Amino acid sequence: MEAAASGWRWQHACGGQLDIIHALEGWSLPDLRTDRRFDITRYQTLLPVSEPPPVHVGWTPIWSHLIAGGRVEFKLEYLSAGGSFKDRGAYVALARARELGARQVVIDSSGNAAISHALLAPLFGIEAHVYLPRWAAEGKKALLRLLGARMHEVEGDRMEVNRRALAAQRDDALYVGHWWNPYFIEGVKTIAYEAVEQCGAFDAVVVPVGSGTLLLGIFKGCRELVQLGGLTGLPRFVGVQASGYDPVAQAFGQQGQAGAPSRLAEGIAIEDPPRREQIVEAIRATKGSAVVVSDEDIRRALDELIGLGFLVEPTSAVGYAGLHKALELRILDRGSRILVPLTGSGFKIAAELAALRR
Amino acid sequence: MEAAASGWRWQHACGGQLDIIHALEGWSLPDLRTDRRFDITRYQTLLPVSEPPPVHVGWTPIWSHLIAGGRVEFKLEYLSAGGSFKDRGAYVALARARELGARQVVIDSSGNAAISHALLAPLFGIEAHVYLPRWAAEGKKALLRLLGARMHEVEGDRMEVNRRALAAQRDDALYVGHWWNPYFIEGVKTIAYEAVEQCGAFDAVVVPVGSGTLLLGIFKGCRELVQLGGLTGLPRFVGVQASGYDPVAQAFGQQGQAGAPSRLAEGIAIEDPPRREQIVEAIRATKGSAVVVSDEDIRRALDELIGLGFLVEPTSAVGYAGLHKALELRILDRGSRILVPLTGSGFKIAAELAALRR
Repeated sequence: MEAAASGWRWQHACGGQLDIIHALEGWSLPDLRTDRRFDITRYQTLLPVSEPPPVHVGWTPIWSHLIAGGRVEFKLEYLSAGGSFKDRGAYVALARARELGARQVVIDSSGNAAISHALLAPLFGIEAHVYLPRWAAEGKKALLRLLGARMHEVEGDRMEVNRRALAAQRDDALYVGHWWNPYFIEGVKTIAYEAVEQCGAFDAVVVPVGSGTLLLGIFKGCRELVQLGGLTGLPRFVGVQASGYDPVAQAFGQQGQAGAPSRLAEGIAIEDPPRREQIVEAIRATKGSAVVVSDEDIRRALDELIGLGFLVEPTSAVGYAGLHKALELRILDRGSRILVPLTGSGFKIAAELAALRR
Repeated sequence: MEAAASGWRWQHACGGQLDIIHALEGWSLPDLRTDRRFDITRYQTLLPVSEPPPVHVGWTPIWSHLIAGGRVEFKLEYLSAGGSFKDRGAYVALARARELGARQVVIDSSGNAAISHALLAPLFGIEAHVYLPRWAAEGKKALLRLLGARMHEVEGDRMEVNRRALAAQRDDALYVGHWWNPYFIEGVKTIAYEAVEQCGAFDAVVVPVGSGTLLLGIFKGCRELVQLGGLTGLPRFVGVQASGYDPVAQAFGQQGQAGAPSRLAEGIAIEDPPRREQIVEAIRATKGSAVVVSDEDIRRALDELIGLGFLVEPTSAVGYAGLHKALELRILDRGSRILVPLTGSGFKIAAELAALRR
């Protein structure tokens, strides 16, 4: 479901999700030789914000490794100001919110999305109101408080937290929950622009899928690159889900082992993502597929990534575990050039990670 | 005290520190328009390692802010793979250690230097042996274990830890303690190269000073840039120390308030750094100075930095607090262009930071 980007709407009147469509005629990608802006505003003409202020978000490093016969381009999104790719989405959402005169944003999350919104909101003169369950980890609450977020701890389950957040939205207090927010996806798409500028076209993209905004963002970026002439065709997308949270993979005939749902992939432990159909369609449009990985796969992938010098969170290792699985299942060919975003920093959860390894 | 870079020597026979001198004739800086390597090996001809392997260390973002009438160039060293500038020094030390055939390195630290060595050592097929006091924070130990370091917890004080580490060194187990290690400084100097490539010359550099390797590294980089024609003269260096740990500042007639020593600046809480004289000489050579900041100054600076979107550790805020002090004392002129490295990530210590803010 798609609508023009006027005003703040995060959901279609029918209850479906919204997307932003750009008229790309006359637009072009920046020139690496002459455009020396190395942050997300490098792509300002392609963002749904009139004058996005410069910010130290975006242009993360990209790093190649030959792995299992494929050339893997790791995009180091975890080396972002807020420790994850969600900075990109939060940036565009906040920039647009400010344009619309909002003084507050409301988000229901205790994870990376809340951290990104809380960290960047003050740069826009905006106050971030974070709704989270009272039982969320103390470390996360401490970090959000440190960043100056207004905290609203809710008694009850995840649904109750969501209800309370939605009840708090007003004309000047915009709901930015990223499962729905179309501006969030607009920020995430810049990962694709950057990757292509940094090292050219790739054959495939392998990403963890929970709410699906990472996959949908990169997909949108690639589609626009095709329109703009930056890519000649779409790379194949492989979505990776964790055991127990695999509604997208099921659509491709894949599912996890029976047994306990994943404990490690907390960032993507989402049973029923609102954009599920859209994710499946995007993957189909690229002749891609989806796979499921177990906690055992994730743990092994995390060990490998740390051995390569990438200190990431377990959810980041989901994509890498899925790369191994996709090669094993011959969903991807050895010899392919594959983009694998490493999504979030391991520093935030060092103690938990260490416990897993003992 | 200086010696040619042959073999592994971290201390002069007389007990003094060692430095590496490069014969720079015929060397040149890379060309930003043609050299597309954006990691520390970009400067390989200027490093004391024959064939430094590529690694995702270096080329951190730089970000300008107009602050108190000066143009501050924040070098975001905290967005490095290991969360601090110490990755650079560890990289060169490990690369050189491998060239010399070492299979192990030995370090006495529980902080950022240990993290950097532990994270990067496996890339060189080297095992990192970390000596630290048994009373070091559990979170730090957990992180180091996660990175695969071999842990040696020592009963006793900091001096006993140092003695145990030194006793463990052998021909194939090199001591890399960064207070002494001249290779460490060689890595740190690349901060200066990058800053000048990224945004040209600057008038001053303001850095926290504990062991002084950050200041000495950037100083060495600037001196080499002058020789290579990348700078026409040395910028002024302002060293910033924390109350209670101010031996360098005392040499410039500055000292902290009487009272308890700093609790916040743990990364630079060093009473008697081995390179003290060298640090004072370097600052004098640039017509610079040194200042002392209190925990109150550091806390305020940290709040400001977080408000700008820089989630750093309190030791990083020492430099920024010192910038304010240097402008106040007219050691630096308003209107100057000032390099301020933000040294370490705040994610590692979110819980502690939050407690400070309550």
